[in-house]
Parts: sequence; structure tokens; C-alpha cells
Amino acid sequence: MPYVHLTTNCFADFLGAGGLDRTYFELMLERTRAALEDLRAKRADASLPLLALPAARDDLDSVMAVAADFRDRFDHVVVLGTGGSSLGGRSISALADGGFGPRSGAPRLWFMDNVDPHSFDALLAGLELSRTGFLVISKSGTTAETLTQFLICTEAVRSAQGEAELSSRFTIITEPGDNALRRIAGRLGMAILDHDPGIGGRYSALSLVGLLPAAIAGLDPAAVRAGAAEVLDAALAADAPDKVEPAIGAAIAVGLLREQKIATTVLMPYVDRLADFGLWFRQLWAESLGKNGTGTTPIRALGTVDQHSQLQLYLDGPHDKMFTLIMLGCADAGARVPEDLAGDASLSYLAGRTMGDLMEAEQSATASTLVANHRPTRIFRLAALDERVMGGLMMHFMLETILAAHLLGVDPFDQPAVEHGKELTRHRLAGERETTS
Amino acid sequence: MPYVHLTTNCFADFLGAGGLDRTYFELMLERTRAALEDLRAKRADASLPLLALPAARDDLDSVMAVAADFRDRFDHVVVLGTGGSSLGGRSISALADGGFGPRSGAPRLWFMDNVDPHSFDALLAGLELSRTGFLVISKSGTTAETLTQFLICTEAVRSAQGEAELSSRFTIITEPGDNALRRIAGRLGMAILDHDPGIGGRYSALSLVGLLPAAIAGLDPAAVRAGAAEVLDAALAADAPDKVEPAIGAAIAVGLLREQKIATTVLMPYVDRLADFGLWFRQLWAESLGKNGTGTTPIRALGTVDQHSQLQLYLDGPHDKMFTLIMLGCADAGARVPEDLAGDASLSYLAGRTMGDLMEAEQSATASTLVANHRPTRIFRLAALDERVMGGLMMHFMLETILAAHLLGVDPFDQPAVEHGKELTRHRLAGERETTS
Repeated sequence: MPYVHLTTNCFADFLGAGGLDRTYFELMLERTRAALEDLRAKRADASLPLLALPAARDDLDSVMAVAADFRDRFDHVVVLGTGGSSLGGRSISALADGGFGPRSGAPRLWFMDNVDPHSFDALLAGLELSRTGFLVISKSGTTAETLTQFLICTEAVRSAQGEAELSSRFTIITEPGDNALRRIAGRLGMAILDHDPGIGGRYSALSLVGLLPAAIAGLDPAAVRAGAAEVLDAALAADAPDKVEPAIGAAIAVGLLREQKIATTVLMPYVDRLADFGLWFRQLWAESLGKNGTGTTPIRALGTVDQHSQLQLYLDGPHDKMFTLIMLGCADAGARVPEDLAGDASLSYLAGRTMGDLMEAEQSATASTLVANHRPTRIFRLAALDERVMGGLMMHFMLETILAAHLLGVDPFDQPAVEHGKELTRHRLAGERETTS
Repeated sequence: MPYVHLTTNCFADFLGAGGLDRTYFELMLERTRAALEDLRAKRADASLPLLALPAARDDLDSVMAVAADFRDRFDHVVVLGTGGSSLGGRSISALADGGFGPRSGAPRLWFMDNVDPHSFDALLAGLELSRTGFLVISKSGTTAETLTQFLICTEAVRSAQGEAELSSRFTIITEPGDNALRRIAGRLGMAILDHDPGIGGRYSALSLVGLLPAAIAGLDPAAVRAGAAEVLDAALAADAPDKVEPAIGAAIAVGLLREQKIATTVLMPYVDRLADFGLWFRQLWAESLGKNGTGTTPIRALGTVDQHSQLQLYLDGPHDKMFTLIMLGCADAGARVPEDLAGDASLSYLAGRTMGDLMEAEQSATASTLVANHRPTRIFRLAALDERVMGGLMMHFMLETILAAHLLGVDPFDQPAVEHGKELTRHRLAGERETTS
């Protein structure tokens, strides 16, 4: 990525014990060649829709139109959906609203991804429903949690505002064809947008699933796509895997797993606005690779906070983790520690420094300390954090995940193990019903 | 815990492959006997202050007085502090404010535990400073992040409200004796409360560090202590380790690590209000046990959300995790899916059910699925979620951590590895200063 400086300290020739043997790494890296070729072919013949998204612009007109309407009419927008239907939009939107309120003129977004009745009651009691819109996202249109949320919110609006209001308050994203969500929404006259059936939830952030919430938050969806396109184009244009950063990342992760039994991967941004991005990555990596008894376990951390929570374990616990730090240059940023208030001899190192100076020093100190403790560490150093960088990061990690799946011999796009639990949930609800009615 | 029903499915005789051999477990459990005896002795001679907290009440008068004053004067209370100075109060306070606004009459609490300049600027720009109080927590009084936050907030109040206002806006918690925070706060006339020097940050939730924010949020600190006392008393009164739930938990965790190489422990509450509790546990476990190359890695998950993110990995990835689910009975709770709106044949299992019914069914389906996939699983089933239960859960996990440390042969109360990074941060800040001034 042109706007990212990437440093890798994962090899035994530098790290010593615990690092990856460079010959083994090169073997792994060479094995990504076929997968890269496959991705090139799939982009050329449009058989993997995900790869067409970065260059697409024609669908953004409708995204912008719906977003403008939502921004115009609503002070609050509740996004109903879970997993991939929630985390992409949430990650991008965090660029505009990092937990301290929306951008001027934008509604506040509420990403409701759970079915905790206590939370839902609190949300609905606190919202001014007459100024609230709902965006309901379920690819299959059959997700039990999302349907339950949707039907309960529909009833709340109907009770408070009347049935005639329903059609203008809810916008649905679901795949084409027949499904329960589409049938109900259609009957109630709600607007329905198509979820691309060829793009799974955890790969949908660059589609309208992630970009519509981002546009409502006041962000530029085209810039997210442009950033993703830069990373995708660079990866597929390279003439060898050693020039493809996502391939290098995949070869390191799988190499460390195979050679060093490093089965945990920690993603640790030093930026509050990337905390949700960590959740998005965690789903992408876990659900794509965790199958057939293999995969590595992603952990979402946050600097500097987790220096005071997890760093002791990271530095001195078992040698079973690799670390990806995401740093954002912030020297001179933020407020300054006043010289007179910090006129304490023990605080001379802080007096006159900004909060960003401290963040800078902590980032680099932690990176140095991890490496000094022989922990495989790579660093994404961002020159800025905006829509373009976010799109680039997302594409980087989607490609890295797909290539790691290739090396592990698993399908990055399925999630077969979770179906049984969904069945069981339906049966239990239906069964309880029979005994109580 | 009398108000918790605990189910354990971690043994090979039930789980099959991947479970813990019961004989090995009993060996581990027997080894907790000496540690329990040690805890009894330390409670009797008051040499471990943590164990005296549950029964203490005399310090709560000042907690309640400060809380009443803060509640009276402020609409917002910013809690400055990181790690153990933040997570205990945040976990308990989440019972009153789960992200959807404070209890009626209570100020909104902002737990600021990072030094991201972007977040801090957003916070200070959004707060009405004339109605904002600050609680500053640092045991040592030398934490760089907390001092930086404190001095920047002090300057913000001084600029907006005048120097005379400073003494009434800030309350400090730090240990007795001389330190930078205490010196500066003393000079500015701020109220200073004593942090017990014998209680480390990650074990401080039951002290004023955790209970003052909770009281400001409108919760009952005495009830938190009472719940902790029930668990502590039951553990120390039992005549054998097999009647001590925290000892059983520690023996399972260490047994699974030693015998099955299960090095990851997932804490997965099915309650939004326990999401922050997961962060508290994650620090407690990681920082207490992750040393000398041993320890297991805690993961904070959340049901049902992570069923759509991590469950694929949990069920079908490597056999390297144990699971602790925390469930809260919620049948019939929350809003009901209206029969007419859900009049779709495929939704008959949902029609007329409540959101809580769905949550109930999902909890038990996931537990069954984990066990069916031979994943060691235990379940805390809570009869309610209030201050007493929170205090009990905290004491359970503190004891389990201390006993696990005993089995692993590490000191649960130190964190030696992180000191080097702190030194490095100070040097880098001081060094940069020299080159730029």
C-alpha cells in the first residue's frame, strides 16, 4: 500500500528463537503463486464478485441517494444485523463517529447485533421513534436474530407511529429471490436493496452492506473503494509473490503456525477508531480459516490500553502469538501537557509534550519490546486514517485471509460448522412452543 | 455461589477426546489445598488486604458521600485511568448503563483509558465542562497515560472555568506517600482518596477504585461486597477443594493446559452488560498468569454476537480452547415477535416468542454444540444480574486466578515484563525533547 509503511520482524535471522526460518517462509510464499494466479483469473472472468467491487462505481448512486434520504429524515439510524452484516459498516463508520457522537449533520448510528432483551428495551425506550430510521441487513433473509429484531422494531414503530409509517422507516438489504425477510418487507411496502448473492457477509464491507452505513455517517464510499482498488491492483499486478504484501502476510502466518506452532494472531491498532476494525478482522480470519481442525485464533487488542492488560502475557507468556501493530503517526497531535502544571521534576519527560507525542512513544516502545522478547511482529504504519486507508486495509486483510486459506487447504468462503447450532435453536424454540401452547 | 448454577463438561469420561482425564484433574485439585490453606491464613492475619474487602463496610461512607456529591453536581463524570484503574469500575457500572445512557438521576460516566488524541479532543469538545467532574485513578501516581490525561483535562477546565474551579472538579485516587499525581493534586487543592497500597490494580474492583464509579452510576457498593463475601466465605469454609468452585475451575484450566495443551480460555457471556466484565477478566487472567513462558490466553467473546463471528473456529478449528459461558435466564423477557407480522410459515418458530426466548434457545444450543464437538465447556447460569451477582463473579474469578497461579508456580500479583516498555517510553519522550528544544 503506497500510503502505508510496513515493517516485518518475524524471521529467525533477526528475531532468533521463535522466529520463522526464511527458507520455510519462501516455500510458503511460493505456494501463494497459484492462488494469486487464480485470483487474477477470477477477476478477469468476474467469477468472484468481491474482486469487482473496488472498481465498481455505478451502484454508488443508489447508496448515496438512500444515505441522503436517511440523513435528511432521521436523527438516529438503527442498523439491524449481525456478524458480517454489522461489522463492516461499523468499522468504516467509526472513522466518523468514534463513540463521541456523529459528525455534524449526520444521524447517530446504532449497530444492534445482539438479541439481549435488556439492551433492546433500553434502546427503544431511549430513541425518539419519530426521528428514527432502520436499516435491516441479512443476506439470507432467514437469520433468526435479525428477523426477531426487525419484527420487534416494526411493531414498536407501528404502535407508536401507525402502520402507514412503516414503509418509509425501514430499508432492507437481502439477496434476491424468495426469503422470509423479503416477503414480509415486501408486504409492508418497505424499500429493498439487493445483497449480492456472490458475496458472503464477512467479505461484504465494500458492498452496500458496509458502504451504506458509512455514507449515512457522512463518509465517502467511493474513496473506500478507491483505497481497496489500489491494494488489489498492486497485488494482482505484481510479477512475483515476494512483491505482494498480503501474500507475504499469509506466508508468515501459516509458516509460523506450521514451523513454530504459533496459533494465535494478535491485531493491535493504536487508534481508537480502529477498535471496531479489529472486530471485523477477527470475524474474517476466524470464520474463513477455522475449520478442519486448523486455523489460527485472532485476538483483537488495542494500544495503549492493552499494554496495561495483555502485554505482560504477550511478552513473557508462551511463545504462541504473532503480532500485527497498526500505528498512526500522531506526533504533535492533540492537546499539550502544560509546562506549569507538570512542573514536577519527575514529569520533565511529559511537560510540553502532546498526547499524540506520548502515543507515538508508546507505539514504538511496545514494538521494540516485542521484538526484543523474540515475538514475531509486523507493523503497519499509516500516514493517515481516512476512507481510502480503511478500504486499503480491508482489501489487504481480505486478500491475506484468502491466501492463508489456500496455504491451509481450506475454503475461505464457507462456515459449515455453525449450521447445526442454528438448527438446534429453531428446534428448541419450536419445541418449547409446543409444550406451552 | 448460591445464586449461580454451575455445569462443567470438561472431562474425558463425558467429552471423549479433548477432555480432561479425571485422575489428572484430581491431582491438580488436590494441589490447591495448600493454596486454600494459605488464603485462609492470610485472611486471618490480614496480610492480603484483598481478602478483607468483602467484609469491610466502614470505608463505604466516604464512597457514598463522594458519589452523592458527584451525582449532585455533575451530568458527566470522566474517569481517567487505565487497566485495573478502569476496568473494575467500568464492569460494575455497566449494570446501570449498558451503553444506552445512565440511570435516571445519574451522570453519564466516560471511562477514558487511552491516550488517542483524536478521541480526547472529541470528548472534550462534546462535554459541557461546567457540568463535568473528573475522577483520576492511578495507584502509583506515576502512570504516564493517566498523568497526561489528568494534566490535559486540568488545563481544559482551567481555561474554560478558571483556576479557582479546579479543586472542586477533580477527585484523585492514589496510594499514600509521595508521588507526582499526589503532589500536583495537592498543590491544586483537589480531594485525594487513598488507594490501598496492598491491592494491585487488577484486584482493586472491590475497593473504592471499582466501587466509587459504581456508586456514582447509582449502584449499591455494599451489595457488590456482600456478593463477593458469599463466594469468599464459601470457598474458605469448605473442608476440601472439591467443594470449592474456584479451585475446581483452576484445576480444570491448568489440567487442560498441561494434559491437553489447551492454552486458550474463552469467556463468553450471553449478556451485553457483561461485555466489559469480559475485559476485566481478560486483564486479571492474562497479567496474573502470563509469565515465565507459561499462562493461558484469555479471549473475551460475547453471545450471541460471536456465534456469527467466532463459533466456526471454536467448533471446527484446533482443539486448543476451553469455554466458559455465562448465561442469564431470560425466557419471556423483552418484546414479543408479533404473530401477525411473523405470519410467514418459515417463521412459525419465532411468532409469539420474545427476544429473551430466542436468547435462551441460542445459549443452550451453543452450549450443546460445543460439547457435541468435544470442546471443554462450563456454564455459569445466573438467576439474576445485579450488584450481588457481580461481586460474586468477581470474587470467583479472582480466587480462580490466584489458585491457577499457584498451580502454575507463578506470582499472581506481579507484572514484571511490562516495566521495560514503560522505561523505553519515558526515554523516547525525553530523548525527542532534547533533540527538538
